Amino acid sequence: MAAQLQLANIRNALIRLEETILFGMIERSQFRRNAAVYQPGLPGGGDHAESLLDYMLHECERSHAKVRRYTSPDEQPFFHDLPEPILPALTYIDNPLAPNTINLNNRIREDYIHRVIPLLCLPGDDKQYGSSAVNDVNLLQALSKRIHYGKFVAECKFQDTPDAFRAAIRACDATRIMALITNAHVEQEVLNRVANKTKIYTGELDQLPGMHCITPETACTIYRDWIIPLNKQVQVDYLLQRENQPGAPHNERRAP
Amino acid sequence: MAAQLQLANIRNALIRLEETILFGMIERSQFRRNAAVYQPGLPGGGDHAESLLDYMLHECERSHAKVRRYTSPDEQPFFHDLPEPILPALTYIDNPLAPNTINLNNRIREDYIHRVIPLLCLPGDDKQYGSSAVNDVNLLQALSKRIHYGKFVAECKFQDTPDAFRAAIRACDATRIMALITNAHVEQEVLNRVANKTKIYTGELDQLPGMHCITPETACTIYRDWIIPLNKQVQVDYLLQRENQPGAPHNERRAP
Repeated sequence: MAAQLQLANIRNALIRLEETILFGMIERSQFRRNAAVYQPGLPGGGDHAESLLDYMLHECERSHAKVRRYTSPDEQPFFHDLPEPILPALTYIDNPLAPNTINLNNRIREDYIHRVIPLLCLPGDDKQYGSSAVNDVNLLQALSKRIHYGKFVAECKFQDTPDAFRAAIRACDATRIMALITNAHVEQEVLNRVANKTKIYTGELDQLPGMHCITPETACTIYRDWIIPLNKQVQVDYLLQRENQPGAPHNERRAP
Repeated sequence: MAAQLQLANIRNALIRLEETILFGMIERSQFRRNAAVYQPGLPGGGDHAESLLDYMLHECERSHAKVRRYTSPDEQPFFHDLPEPILPALTYIDNPLAPNTINLNNRIREDYIHRVIPLLCLPGDDKQYGSSAVNDVNLLQALSKRIHYGKFVAECKFQDTPDAFRAAIRACDATRIMALITNAHVEQEVLNRVANKTKIYTGELDQLPGMHCITPETACTIYRDWIIPLNKQVQVDYLLQRENQPGAPHNERRAP
């Protein structure tokens, strides 16, 4: 089995991403919600079509596309008009994924603005628009990667018990697929770890006067009600595409 | 006294930056040294004048300049051909600093490549050039901010005992100024906190198989031998400019 499909390796990648996500949440929560960052037109800057967040995210993706970030199977861009890489292509010989078009980034960005930011940040406007948007970009990219990692998880689960999945996939039975991929025990382990890490990572900062820190409960809420469900949605979408995409049949890999 | 000059506020800003720097070190240390990132010409990409790091840093600074990052008194750019802001200017009414031209970023970048990277990363090349450079940019920007915060520290110390400083400054006695700004007890407190935080922040990750993590000793070495001395250099340079710059006399502020 390709190294990317060993469940232990996937699990380690997801655990590593928890640090990036929690560090990102802690950084963003230092600033107010700053709604002006998310409204079309730059704050005070006249008739610019994009919001400040979109402007910064777009600029960032343009430069990262040039160094081939979005050729990696574990990266999905938010924008689709990006320049070609200026670095020579890497060959991802171990890419275990079936060809797929799953990209939930529009949904992720909308939810982030309307559901996550109100949980992370105190209400109000502190004029720190640039800092807020820079932190948003970093955090959104980490969240997108974490959520889309569901593709690797799903492929791993499929190869573990292909017959059970194949029946549900061919019937397009999303409910059954969702049941097959769900492991309540593992989800609870993630939440316990996130709560514990948040407590550890904010413990020093919490003692600073005037410091707004996320709580373990907030981090768990975001994971339980948003990151985990979207990750599972990616898994279901991926599996439905995996067997039902006539134009791109997947050359099935099995465990050796 | 302006809020920015209360020693407690400066101290809190520096403590907050420790998280950003330590998180950044942890992220970068996941990848190999990847010397190709720092050599002129993009890796495998032909005759590009800039290294990949410089290319990414330059692109990042261009987009951040547009959202007025470098109009803030606590930010210094690495490049000097940046575009004008597209956001309306903020007025930093509380800026307590004397006009100054202190910018150690060229030195910071050179030392980062040749002294810090070998401490953070395992030797070798894992081809993760884009990820390495993205993490370098974030970490370099945090390090630059931390080091240049010496300007605020120096102004604060000056206003505390202006007569002692003024004599040393007018004599251009850098050694005497260095002695006046040095507080070995505070430096040891910083090192103790950095060691403790690194232990906390890497404790979870350290248990993952195959994971390379920085040690508390490494983080302390970088702070003790590099960040703190450069921060003190900024303080001395700032104080020398403060009183000796005929073109830009500083309208001295005293504590009320």
